[in-house]
Amino acid sequence: MDKIVSLCKRRGFVFPGSEIYGGLANSWDYGPLGVELKNNIKQLWWDRFVRRRGDMVGIDAALIMNPKVWEASGHLATFSDPLVECQSCHERFRFDGPDSPSTKELWNHISKKHPETIGTLKTDATVTSFNLVEKDFTKPKQFNLMLKTFLGPAEEQTNLAYLRPEIAQAMFVNFKQVLDTTRRRLPFGIASQGKAFRNEITPGNFIFRTREFDLMEFEYFIEEKDWEKWFEYWQNEMKEWITNDLGINPKKVHEVEISKEDRAHYSKRTIDFEYDYPFGQKELYGLAYRTDFDLKNHEKISGQNLKYRDPETGEEFLPHVIEPTFGLDRSVLATLLDAYHEDEDRVVLKLPPKLAPYKVAVFPLLANKPELTKLAEKICGDLRKHFTVAWDDRGNIGKRYYSQDEIGTPFCITVDFDSLKKDDVTVRDRDTAKQKRVKIKELENYLHGKIYS
Amino acid sequence: MDKIVSLCKRRGFVFPGSEIYGGLANSWDYGPLGVELKNNIKQLWWDRFVRRRGDMVGIDAALIMNPKVWEASGHLATFSDPLVECQSCHERFRFDGPDSPSTKELWNHISKKHPETIGTLKTDATVTSFNLVEKDFTKPKQFNLMLKTFLGPAEEQTNLAYLRPEIAQAMFVNFKQVLDTTRRRLPFGIASQGKAFRNEITPGNFIFRTREFDLMEFEYFIEEKDWEKWFEYWQNEMKEWITNDLGINPKKVHEVEISKEDRAHYSKRTIDFEYDYPFGQKELYGLAYRTDFDLKNHEKISGQNLKYRDPETGEEFLPHVIEPTFGLDRSVLATLLDAYHEDEDRVVLKLPPKLAPYKVAVFPLLANKPELTKLAEKICGDLRKHFTVAWDDRGNIGKRYYSQDEIGTPFCITVDFDSLKKDDVTVRDRDTAKQKRVKIKELENYLHGKIYS
Repeated sequence: MDKIVSLCKRRGFVFPGSEIYGGLANSWDYGPLGVELKNNIKQLWWDRFVRRRGDMVGIDAALIMNPKVWEASGHLATFSDPLVECQSCHERFRFDGPDSPSTKELWNHISKKHPETIGTLKTDATVTSFNLVEKDFTKPKQFNLMLKTFLGPAEEQTNLAYLRPEIAQAMFVNFKQVLDTTRRRLPFGIASQGKAFRNEITPGNFIFRTREFDLMEFEYFIEEKDWEKWFEYWQNEMKEWITNDLGINPKKVHEVEISKEDRAHYSKRTIDFEYDYPFGQKELYGLAYRTDFDLKNHEKISGQNLKYRDPETGEEFLPHVIEPTFGLDRSVLATLLDAYHEDEDRVVLKLPPKLAPYKVAVFPLLANKPELTKLAEKICGDLRKHFTVAWDDRGNIGKRYYSQDEIGTPFCITVDFDSLKKDDVTVRDRDTAKQKRVKIKELENYLHGKIYS
Repeated sequence: MDKIVSLCKRRGFVFPGSEIYGGLANSWDYGPLGVELKNNIKQLWWDRFVRRRGDMVGIDAALIMNPKVWEASGHLATFSDPLVECQSCHERFRFDGPDSPSTKELWNHISKKHPETIGTLKTDATVTSFNLVEKDFTKPKQFNLMLKTFLGPAEEQTNLAYLRPEIAQAMFVNFKQVLDTTRRRLPFGIASQGKAFRNEITPGNFIFRTREFDLMEFEYFIEEKDWEKWFEYWQNEMKEWITNDLGINPKKVHEVEISKEDRAHYSKRTIDFEYDYPFGQKELYGLAYRTDFDLKNHEKISGQNLKYRDPETGEEFLPHVIEPTFGLDRSVLATLLDAYHEDEDRVVLKLPPKLAPYKVAVFPLLANKPELTKLAEKICGDLRKHFTVAWDDRGNIGKRYYSQDEIGTPFCITVDFDSLKKDDVTVRDRDTAKQKRVKIKELENYLHGKIYS
C-alpha cells in the first residue's frame, strides 16, 4: 500500500488535499494522471451501462436536495454512528462496542491525554474498554453522518440542508419525471455519477474511505416477481465490468452475501463485492434489492402518485428496484493496486490500455538533434488528435521506458536516425517490453487497434 | 425563455430540483437528455483544452479544502453581499443601494408583511427606499456567500469548513505538486472541471444562476512580460470554442472590457463574454489576468515556497496567471437558446451534431410488422456500439421526426418494406429535412462522417 501511495504522489495520480496547508484530514486531490484514469473509468462505465443500452437513461441531479428527501429515505432518522465523549476534555470518538477496534482509540486517548485516571483501570485496552466507557466517557450517542449546510441568508432550522450522503435518492425523486418524459416501460434503469458526502469520524486508508467521494450507480426498476432474475443478471454484469473493463484479477474479488442483521434497513438482499486490498478484504461495490421501499416512502412523504402504469394491462403499481453501486474512488484504487507489478528491474502498472492516462509516449532518441526533435514533435502532434500523448526527451531511452512503465503507458515510440530515412519508428510494448518497427503513417491505426480492440 | 424552460422540462433536459417536494429554491436536475448534452460539452472541452494540448494538464480536487485556502484567496474577507434585516420580523434581504432594483423587494416586504408602518412613508418604492432602510431595516451588513459545513464530530469553529466558491484555488494550491511531478516548463496550464457553491440570496433565471454550479476552467501560468500576448491568445481561443464548438451565433456574443472599479480584487484586466439571453445581455464566460496575486498569497499564508525555477537561467519567480473561466450550466443554456428555432410547422434544436444527446433515431415504419421491427432493432443495436441512439415506434413518421427535431437529433433512420429487399434505409437530416437512401452496412461510416467531421 505504501508503495502505491508513494507512486501516486510522486507521479501525479493522487496528492494529499490542501497539502501546502498541512492537508485536510483524509482529503485527496487527483493529479494530472489520476484525473485521466478516473475520467476514463467514469466514461467507460457510462458508455457501457447507459449509452450502449436501450433500457437505461442518465440524470445529473443537484447535490443539495430538499431536506424532506432525507426524511423519506430514512437518513435523518437512522444514518448515524455511535459516539462517546471524553468526560474530561469533551473530545468525541466513535465507539462500536466493547469488542471492536474502536476501543483502542479510546484507550490511547485516556493514556496519553489523561494518564492520571489510568491507575484505576487495568492496562489492557481490550479488556478494560467497557469499563473505560462507563468511567471516562459518556454513554454512546447516535451522531448523524450527513454534512449540514445552511441555504439563504440566515442560519436557522428552516434553512438547514444536507449534502447528499448517497446518490440513489436523486433517481427516486426524479423517477416520475423521467418516466413521463421518456415514456419508458419496465424494466428500465436510471443512472447517475457524482459526489456524495459522509461525515465519517474515522475515515482512512488513502482514497478507500473519504468524507467526499464519487459514486456511479443505477436504480433498475422492475416488477416484483422478477427480482431474483434481475439480481442475478446485474451480479454477472458487475463481475464482467470488474474483470473485463477494469482488468482486475477475479481471484482477488469476493462476493459476500450480507446477512439480514447487517443489511441496510431498505434491503431484502445485498451482495458486497469485496477486494483484497493490502489492508484487508473490504468493500469494493454493492448490489442491493431495495424492494419498493424508497418509492413507497417518497409517495407517503410527498403525497405524490409515483406509480407506474402498465400500458398493456392498465395496472398501476410501484416498481421494485435492483441497485448496483460502484464507488469510483475505490474503482481507481483497486485498478491501480491490481495493475501494480514489480518485475526484476522495473515497476510496471499493467493498466488496461483503454484506462491508461497516457496511451502513448513519444521520444526523440537524442534531445540535441533538431531533426529528430522536429519529426518526433510532428508525430506527437498528429497522435494527440486521437490519443493522450506523453513527451519525454530527457535521459537515456531505458530510463524513459521505465518512467512510462511506472505510470502504465502501454506504448512508447522512439524516433531515431533510421526514422528520418525509412519513415518508421520503434514502438515498444509496455507488458512484453518487445519492440517493433511501424511505419509512421500507420501509427494511428496500429495504436487504435491495440488500444481499443 | 419560457419556451426553452418548458421544452427542457417536457422532454427531459432539465427538471426542477426535488420537484415532488415542491422543489428547492433555484435547484435544477439534469434529466436524460440534459445530462448527455452537459457531458458532451464537458468532454469536448476537456479534449480540446487538455488532452489535445502539450501545454495543459488536468486535476480534480476535493470540493472541501483547508479553510486557510479561503483566507489566502481573500474569500473569507471580501466574498460577500450587503444584506439588511427587517426590524419587525428579522427576515434578511439583499440591498445594493437606494437606486438598485433590490429596493423594490424591500418595499414589497414592508407593504405586504408590515402595512401598518406604511403610513409614515411615501408609497413610491424607489423614492422611499433609502428612507425605508433607515426606518424599517437595519443598516446593510456584509454577508459571506460561502456555504459552510462542519467536519468531524462536533460543530465547533475548529471544524468549520466551506464548500468551494470557485475552482481556481484548487489549481493554485496544487501548483507546486503538479510542477514537481510533471516537470513542466512555462508556459503551461492546469485545468479542472467541477462544482462550486455560492449562497446567492437572489439566484434565478433557470440554470443561469444557481447555488451550486459546474465550472470548467484553467489557470495558465506564464512569465509576467508575456501576459498581454497570452491574454489575447486565450481571448481568441474562447471565441473559437463558443462559435465553432458550441455553434453559437457570434453576433449574440459580446466581449465586454470590465473597468477597474468592477473588476475582482485580484484582476489587472478582465473581459467578460456576454450572451444575449432572453432576459438581457449577461455573463457567459470570463477571462482574467490574475497576476501573481494567488500564488503570492498562498506563499505568504502557507509559508511554502511556490516559486518556479527557470531550468535555463536558474532564476526563481512566481509565475503570472491568465484564467479563462467557462460556466458549464451557462454553456448548456446558451447552446440550447441559440440552437432553438421555430420553422413554419416545427420546433427544431439545431445543436452541433457532436453535442446532440441522441446522434440518431431509428424507426420501424410500422409498429405492428415484426419483420420491420426486427430489422430496425438489429440496426439500432449495431449503431448503439458507436452512437447514442433513440428508438421510436409510435405514431406516424412525421410526428416522430418532429419529436426528434425538438430534441436536436441530427439524423432519423426509417426502416421500411424496401429495406427488407434492398438492405437500405431512409436517412433524414434534421436541418434540411431532406431524405436519402443509405445502405445499411454503410450507415456507421456515413453517420460518423456527418457527425464528427
